[in-house]
Amino acid sequence: MAKKLTLNPDRLFSPDEKIRNIARILYQSVKDLPIISPHGHTDPAWFADNKPFENATDLLIKPDHYVFRMLYSQGIALEDLGIPTQNDTPVETDGRKIWNIFAKNYHLFRGTPSRMWLDTVFVEVFDIDVVLCAETADHYYDTINAALATDAFKPRALFDRFNIELLSTTESPLSDLSHHQKIAASDWNGRVISAYRPDPVVDPEFEGFQNAVKYFGELTGEDSSNYKGYLQAHRVRREFFKSHGVTSTDHGHPTAQTADLCFKDAEALYSKVINGNSSLEDAEMFRAQMLTEMASMSIEDGLVMQIHPGSFRNHNQDIFATFGRDKGADIPLQTHYVEPLKPLLDKFGNSADLTLILFTLDETSYSRELAPLAGHYPCLKLGPPWWFHDSPEGMRRFRNQAMETAGLYNTVGFNDDTRAFLSIPARHDVARRMDCNWLAELVCDHRLEMEEANDMAVELAYSLAKKAYKL
Amino acid sequence: MAKKLTLNPDRLFSPDEKIRNIARILYQSVKDLPIISPHGHTDPAWFADNKPFENATDLLIKPDHYVFRMLYSQGIALEDLGIPTQNDTPVETDGRKIWNIFAKNYHLFRGTPSRMWLDTVFVEVFDIDVVLCAETADHYYDTINAALATDAFKPRALFDRFNIELLSTTESPLSDLSHHQKIAASDWNGRVISAYRPDPVVDPEFEGFQNAVKYFGELTGEDSSNYKGYLQAHRVRREFFKSHGVTSTDHGHPTAQTADLCFKDAEALYSKVINGNSSLEDAEMFRAQMLTEMASMSIEDGLVMQIHPGSFRNHNQDIFATFGRDKGADIPLQTHYVEPLKPLLDKFGNSADLTLILFTLDETSYSRELAPLAGHYPCLKLGPPWWFHDSPEGMRRFRNQAMETAGLYNTVGFNDDTRAFLSIPARHDVARRMDCNWLAELVCDHRLEMEEANDMAVELAYSLAKKAYKL
Amino acid sequence: MAKKLTLNPDRLFSPDEKIRNIARILYQSVKDLPIISPHGHTDPAWFADNKPFENATDLLIKPDHYVFRMLYSQGIALEDLGIPTQNDTPVETDGRKIWNIFAKNYHLFRGTPSRMWLDTVFVEVFDIDVVLCAETADHYYDTINAALATDAFKPRALFDRFNIELLSTTESPLSDLSHHQKIAASDWNGRVISAYRPDPVVDPEFEGFQNAVKYFGELTGEDSSNYKGYLQAHRVRREFFKSHGVTSTDHGHPTAQTADLCFKDAEALYSKVINGNSSLEDAEMFRAQMLTEMASMSIEDGLVMQIHPGSFRNHNQDIFATFGRDKGADIPLQTHYVEPLKPLLDKFGNSADLTLILFTLDETSYSRELAPLAGHYPCLKLGPPWWFHDSPEGMRRFRNQAMETAGLYNTVGFNDDTRAFLSIPARHDVARRMDCNWLAELVCDHRLEMEEANDMAVELAYSLAKKAYKL
Repeated sequence: MAKKLTLNPDRLFSPDEKIRNIARILYQSVKDLPIISPHGHTDPAWFADNKPFENATDLLIKPDHYVFRMLYSQGIALEDLGIPTQNDTPVETDGRKIWNIFAKNYHLFRGTPSRMWLDTVFVEVFDIDVVLCAETADHYYDTINAALATDAFKPRALFDRFNIELLSTTESPLSDLSHHQKIAASDWNGRVISAYRPDPVVDPEFEGFQNAVKYFGELTGEDSSNYKGYLQAHRVRREFFKSHGVTSTDHGHPTAQTADLCFKDAEALYSKVINGNSSLEDAEMFRAQMLTEMASMSIEDGLVMQIHPGSFRNHNQDIFATFGRDKGADIPLQTHYVEPLKPLLDKFGNSADLTLILFTLDETSYSRELAPLAGHYPCLKLGPPWWFHDSPEGMRRFRNQAMETAGLYNTVGFNDDTRAFLSIPARHDVARRMDCNWLAELVCDHRLEMEEANDMAVELAYSLAKKAYKL
Repeated sequence: MAKKLTLNPDRLFSPDEKIRNIARILYQSVKDLPIISPHGHTDPAWFADNKPFENATDLLIKPDHYVFRMLYSQGIALEDLGIPTQNDTPVETDGRKIWNIFAKNYHLFRGTPSRMWLDTVFVEVFDIDVVLCAETADHYYDTINAALATDAFKPRALFDRFNIELLSTTESPLSDLSHHQKIAASDWNGRVISAYRPDPVVDPEFEGFQNAVKYFGELTGEDSSNYKGYLQAHRVRREFFKSHGVTSTDHGHPTAQTADLCFKDAEALYSKVINGNSSLEDAEMFRAQMLTEMASMSIEDGLVMQIHPGSFRNHNQDIFATFGRDKGADIPLQTHYVEPLKPLLDKFGNSADLTLILFTLDETSYSRELAPLAGHYPCLKLGPPWWFHDSPEGMRRFRNQAMETAGLYNTVGFNDDTRAFLSIPARHDVARRMDCNWLAELVCDHRLEMEEANDMAVELAYSLAKKAYKL
Repeated sequence: MAKKLTLNPDRLFSPDEKIRNIARILYQSVKDLPIISPHGHTDPAWFADNKPFENATDLLIKPDHYVFRMLYSQGIALEDLGIPTQNDTPVETDGRKIWNIFAKNYHLFRGTPSRMWLDTVFVEVFDIDVVLCAETADHYYDTINAALATDAFKPRALFDRFNIELLSTTESPLSDLSHHQKIAASDWNGRVISAYRPDPVVDPEFEGFQNAVKYFGELTGEDSSNYKGYLQAHRVRREFFKSHGVTSTDHGHPTAQTADLCFKDAEALYSKVINGNSSLEDAEMFRAQMLTEMASMSIEDGLVMQIHPGSFRNHNQDIFATFGRDKGADIPLQTHYVEPLKPLLDKFGNSADLTLILFTLDETSYSRELAPLAGHYPCLKLGPPWWFHDSPEGMRRFRNQAMETAGLYNTVGFNDDTRAFLSIPARHDVARRMDCNWLAELVCDHRLEMEEANDMAVELAYSLAKKAYKL
């Protein structure tokens, strides 16, 4: 017999009654605030076209590398989960069959954030009341698919129902932002903006870099065969993004290295990298130089800058060859900030016109590097716990390790950073619960007054993000 | 007047009543499960010969570097503790005198896991009911020695009383496993197996490496003067171990570096290292290459592979010169996994036939590297908190930092990894208590249902180890 | 209307009633113990001259980089806070105006230790009962200034009122210790000693190093143009410090690197560094060599040695150029101990005559390196959580991560390490509360008996520091 699925209203709150009571009160004041999602990876086509989502498997499993990597780690082939291959090897196409594999293995997610997000989606979005398992797999598949076929579950309707005030996707400078244009031109009021993510034309190790740079020049009418024209192309494209409501850039580099080369050296380096003569060191130096250039342009045009460093992308070479990027094989690396950021900070660190939001996958940097840096430099702010650390324990560590030194006001609230659209409310809810619980702890051991905690809860859930991202 | 010594039945459980109540229930269901000890360093001669242990000092102090290093750190000479020297300098031989030093300084262990294990041994094994201190030292010494002289305290009787289902020791490939043979041939039913630990013939920096390799060839009838014969010798010896019930190998390297050299390069490197012409880099490269070779053989013969990297062995040069290895002067080093493991993982990472269990002394790798790796690669599993981290707080950190990303099912339960035989039940008990308390916390903040927690408690205490080590 | 400011008597204690009750009992037995402040940076002139402090701003804001760096991080110019420039650019001189800026931004400190220390000073030292904010700024400024003008708030009176048994300042070897002499010669009984901090004559990268070394020779009558004379100058100056009651040295190096060069090589290196021909590597090697020389001298003269490594000083080049050192722009770096300390430990690590107290800004070293080292080497002890980690959460991490392996008796109690004189009782109070709470947790999950916890609380609050620093 299927077990009942419910969401406890006190989930994630400390079992200590004193803390729980305070957390409840704080949570009441933030739980219904609109969602600001200032950084993420949903597909803007969803909101532009507003077509119904296909089915449970296409919506909840195939795009979510958090989900299929865990199944893969336990020996389930990605082909059996329908993950498309690069070489057109046939993969499972029967969504129901895939859903059944997932359901049968749902216990693997015990204690993970994916489990919490998924259960929240099941209950709150689809109104399901039994636990997912082999026996209930078909019930789930049918229920979800039936719902998805209705108007109430089309992307825009869900966006509205989720009370999203603003959602940012992330696009390459080569994107024409046509989906965003279509959204803006529509009679729908949902605010979906993009972020300028120039990795494909900034990172010489990105697949297809040289062609991308060439096209970058054509697109902007600038001569991208020389550094000056290339930089100008960025300015043009940033302005284009900005004219579509964009307020931020994002940079997904392997390290946080920055550089401040003289123009001549930068020019020579550029010529190497676009001609494919560059070493690994050259590529790193070019990315480093470009972070400083991007900071310079941010001071000109006001776009908020984000750095998401420290992931060893596509660590599993076979998986990368067969399935491509973003297949759950990106592994964090130790990441340094103090020396790598110095060239940029020496140049712009004291500028009040720059906002540079730092993220990390290396939690050792919280107390040692990031909090002291953000607690001093006017331009720096700390992004929320990211990716693997977007989890209850990850949030707890961030608060406990970074806040005493950085101070709350040098942080930027929550980012969901997800491509799993349905999980957005669940993720924000986890963050709001954990933040309220953290504040409740400080109230209960008398480090904060209740009134302050109330202010701070609202800042964390809503205001800090809005202000930091200039929304 | 001597203070009363008791073990609180709720020790290590949260003082919060809600958590404690759940932890108690979970613990009830696992506390009497048989002990699986799949990796450790007890002496198989104990169980082969079944001679009574000598006395309290020889049993509990001299072999336990956790104990004597703490005394040494406070200025007590190892000679005064009877630790044998390499150069036959006389050391204290009066066990009672040594025991008295230990007793007088027992306060030094306050808050350490050694204290908890020792107290558990005193109460549960020897039925002592007063606290160890200068005044009770002789009472302890006499009580323990009297017990040890009885049949009930002989190694096999204790093994049975401890409810050990399986115990693995660790031997060099050069071992004849005669003790294990003797155990197997006896009428005793205790299951004591070994693990294949080839460091003495794999690590060019190991004392006596070259002679060991020579003997390795003789022992196997293979020509260990060339790489092919040397590899074949491993195959032969692994098969020999396997035929004695062995299911795992273990590798105690300074780093987790792996390599995948072509045969020619590996052959040339081998020739350098066995001729003593190798640099430190060569030695590191050879160990790295051998991890990949061992993985290859594991795929052939099914032995589970363990890597225990990251210890700077024998850091104290004077202590090493005078007393030799394993004297409490092994200090952890920062340890990287993401790039070092790549050569091996590129080759075998997606193989379902390989089980590679990773350990660490560098806790920063839990959330940053190990959990993401184990949460993706089918061959990888995470070993439990090891050595210095085999402690209540160490276990708490492991659970909180690794589980959300790795998932429980990519872990392998508990290892005691000890040479302190009597402490084995105490160590497993600490792990069971901490795991139940962790699960209870997840139940109490509604991240797990009670039924799931019950399953998981049993997995942690018993099933995961049995399955991962193919027992 | 102004909000009431009170200090909750249970602040920092766990909200769990069982833990809180034990913590309260332990705290009662230590809260009134005299303060031992064995390492800090207060100005000895205060106690020598015993002049009243100027005003609230000069006393509480301008010298406290914890305070003004947070304001600076939010875009408030240091000039507006009256921080003096090196180039005589005019800065705000109106203390009241600066105080108002601080008051208006006091919310920035929510959740930081500065907030806790400041509130404690406001209530306990100045008897203020309203919360600091824009509206109460003038009330604060007037109240504090009025108090400071009275005899009861002169430095010596406060020292006595704070129940400080001993306070150590930190001076360069070039200091004449005249303030300390004046204190000793006075009829006041307060014990204010110094610590020998030779960085200006040991670190070739210190501003003015070469002139300092020259003067060092003149001051001691030794020929500091050669290494032998230079070492002798240290001996002379250490003796001078010792004759003024000094019991410790302190070394603020970028890393924990030590070296053990032969005399000839050391001599050649010295000649390079004092002639300004040294590379960065030479400078690092010289500092490394000097740590070992200092250890050698400590064995001769008994001075306790402290290493405070791992800060990237003056990271913000503009701030350094305009405002100089110690302006909140010192950022921690990853810091290694295992290999860097080996040369020194190989030479002196087993000496019972050396006490070497290690500090860190890199918390990852607690469980991985520092606790195992201190839990083995007789000469090593661990200093308390330092600087950014002198905070409730920093203390919690230190206890949870270092104590199981190092053991309490390889630590040295608390250091305030502050230049903010008025915060000293508040800082010690935070440490005492956090330590009592930690012990209470161990009592409540039955890892310690109450009687032991009581002993340990007194050790932590008083005895360990007194013993380790030979006071």
